[in-house]
Amino acid sequence: MTNPINIGILGLGVVGGGAVRVLTEHAAAIERKVGAPLVIKKIAVRDLNKPRDIAVDPALLTDDPNEVIADPDIRILCELIGGVEPAHGYVLRAIQSGKNIVTANKEMMAKAGNDLLQEAEERGLDFSFEGSVGGGIPIIQPLKQALAANKFTQILGIVNGTTNYILSKMTAEDADFGDVLREAQAHGYAEADPTNDIEGYDAQYKTAILASIAFTSRVDPADIYVEGLTRIAKRDIEVAKELGYVIKIVGIGQDLGDALQVRVHPVLLPQAHPLASVNDVYNAIFLHGDAVGDVMFYGRGAGGLPTGSAVVGDIIEIARNIRRGATGRLGCTCYDQKPILPIDQLETNYYVRLLAHDRPKVLASLASIFGDFDVSIESVVQRALPDGDAEIVWITHRCLEANLRSALDVISRLEIVTGIQNWIRVEE
Amino acid sequence: MTNPINIGILGLGVVGGGAVRVLTEHAAAIERKVGAPLVIKKIAVRDLNKPRDIAVDPALLTDDPNEVIADPDIRILCELIGGVEPAHGYVLRAIQSGKNIVTANKEMMAKAGNDLLQEAEERGLDFSFEGSVGGGIPIIQPLKQALAANKFTQILGIVNGTTNYILSKMTAEDADFGDVLREAQAHGYAEADPTNDIEGYDAQYKTAILASIAFTSRVDPADIYVEGLTRIAKRDIEVAKELGYVIKIVGIGQDLGDALQVRVHPVLLPQAHPLASVNDVYNAIFLHGDAVGDVMFYGRGAGGLPTGSAVVGDIIEIARNIRRGATGRLGCTCYDQKPILPIDQLETNYYVRLLAHDRPKVLASLASIFGDFDVSIESVVQRALPDGDAEIVWITHRCLEANLRSALDVISRLEIVTGIQNWIRVEE
Repeated sequence: MTNPINIGILGLGVVGGGAVRVLTEHAAAIERKVGAPLVIKKIAVRDLNKPRDIAVDPALLTDDPNEVIADPDIRILCELIGGVEPAHGYVLRAIQSGKNIVTANKEMMAKAGNDLLQEAEERGLDFSFEGSVGGGIPIIQPLKQALAANKFTQILGIVNGTTNYILSKMTAEDADFGDVLREAQAHGYAEADPTNDIEGYDAQYKTAILASIAFTSRVDPADIYVEGLTRIAKRDIEVAKELGYVIKIVGIGQDLGDALQVRVHPVLLPQAHPLASVNDVYNAIFLHGDAVGDVMFYGRGAGGLPTGSAVVGDIIEIARNIRRGATGRLGCTCYDQKPILPIDQLETNYYVRLLAHDRPKVLASLASIFGDFDVSIESVVQRALPDGDAEIVWITHRCLEANLRSALDVISRLEIVTGIQNWIRVEE
Repeated sequence: MTNPINIGILGLGVVGGGAVRVLTEHAAAIERKVGAPLVIKKIAVRDLNKPRDIAVDPALLTDDPNEVIADPDIRILCELIGGVEPAHGYVLRAIQSGKNIVTANKEMMAKAGNDLLQEAEERGLDFSFEGSVGGGIPIIQPLKQALAANKFTQILGIVNGTTNYILSKMTAEDADFGDVLREAQAHGYAEADPTNDIEGYDAQYKTAILASIAFTSRVDPADIYVEGLTRIAKRDIEVAKELGYVIKIVGIGQDLGDALQVRVHPVLLPQAHPLASVNDVYNAIFLHGDAVGDVMFYGRGAGGLPTGSAVVGDIIEIARNIRRGATGRLGCTCYDQKPILPIDQLETNYYVRLLAHDRPKVLASLASIFGDFDVSIESVVQRALPDGDAEIVWITHRCLEANLRSALDVISRLEIVTGIQNWIRVEE
């Protein structure tokens, strides 16, 4: 019989529990695929006495992470704690003691992944993080392997299930943000403090990871412009629908050749776009490669079992490499250091919704100001409101964001303008 | 400098041309990913003098496949001819002479893939065939790697671009099959003899490959029940739409535990199903795994560059294995030999559209016959037609196909029934 491959796990929360369950329930099938049994040797937890959903032999548990990191029999260490520290320090020491790493930690990978990957590569070790983006959706492996022949010019991802759930509900049920957020919290789809999701920080980490891999150039999350969900009003969703669009929060990356544009914000997507029908807690990542064309990956972006699927998929691949003496097969692929353009230099289409006094020539004078800033208009819809104002909704042609912002600045200060209600980028 | 890895190619048609273009244009990026240059050493073509879209050094071309197969410097052989023979004989000899194989040949893989994979595995060689299903969409690698921790119970794939294009056009434009087929032929989306696509044989091969991998059990394409597109009338598409469904041709596989059910035929899909919005020549494969849940892969299912993307992705992976002395890492995964159930034993929902004389109690007497065969009805819509007949559309609850067929047999012989216009399986 072949020697078992020992696994150590840090963290037995939602994802850790999912990974342990998948490893345990599919032990026989996994052994067949790897050619050796995988054995969970130790699991570090914060509180040994905490009641758990998952049945784990108490002898495996320790409350000292160092016991796992220092165990020379452990070949694969799974870091499933989350956050940068202490996770990063644990992982670094595990690499230095010769362990292959699996993690689902998006924040650590976005902020400090590059150095960790280099450390692992120098020692010929595997370092895998499929679960850090898109939960169980295979995306990192496909980008590094099956799609490796492509030059990607665009990525567009719905990578946060909480905000996608809220937006889907607001759209389908004509509901208010606050009501849907409370419902999402009751279902466990949103956390008690939902800031990380709602303000787009979670999507920022994931987009940094995706863009780094797709464009083979390191993207620092701090360079990613972010707007959250709170900017979106129910009225914007209604108007977008009338115009043939759906509002989604996406992480967007473009490789412009010499520079990258990477950003997270709400967009109007045409209803026929493959991402437009991705609803509820589902995630999807859409990419354009020069050879493959448009390609999309869809699935559950969070949860113990889906993310456990990604974690154990990584473990299986590493175990196969261990069996063949081939760990370190796939190293870091951030070969380039392309600059990230500031948001002002973005060129795209825009949706602008504003209220103005319903007087003759209002439309003409506003259009003229847009024109002064080189912002040309694709379509405009004006509606009289009962209070004597008019709601005017503009879709612009492609223009420079700096120009759009300047035009809106001037427009907002006009006496005839009651207020700019919102402006949102449009992805055609 | 690291020694180059030599590649031989059999066939320089649409896919061969795409693969050569991707390898050539991305040579520098691929070298960075592999750690060694990839060099096309020889390409076997049928006709040396044929004019080609792609510029290839004439010194690389030969009209003798044996020159490629016998060349001891070639480490990776790409078979891009198609069909079972002579491709299969060439590939077998290439394996026996120690070459790693890449192929995009669905018919060969479906009919004879098992033996070829075993031959390669015994010699510790790689054998990859990502391009044989779904063109450029990564699906075989993700199933064997990132998703390897799952037990899959369902696959559902739109795997034929030609029929999906025709059905999408018939649906969007209320057009007739014949007209759309001629348009598809003019666009190059359908062949002059479209039998292979229209009758579902192409989908049959691809579904056999997908089911074999997803269920880790060999599926012989001859055991797959197939119905083609010609069964679908414009009226069925209209009625389906009114009922909230879209008609698609899909390859379906289910793992029932002791047996598999694998089939290719039109289905009614609910409009909210992720596959329902996959239109035109796009393909998508939807799967349900016990850990990952629902997951879907979407992209271009055919064409030189998309399939070239898959072929070169395979080449890159093999080259990485060659560099690490780790070829044969991933062998055949058909561990089981589960039987395929005959279509009569299928249990699903059905759509039945028939014409009957518009007389009192017709509905009741037909419903009673369905009841006699244990077919219970979920919904029924009756419409009076100008000619004195009524069109009656039934959606059944889940029932045994043998029972549904028996009921329809009795119903079709009733004097009050003008004719059963169509019946189609429904995927809920």
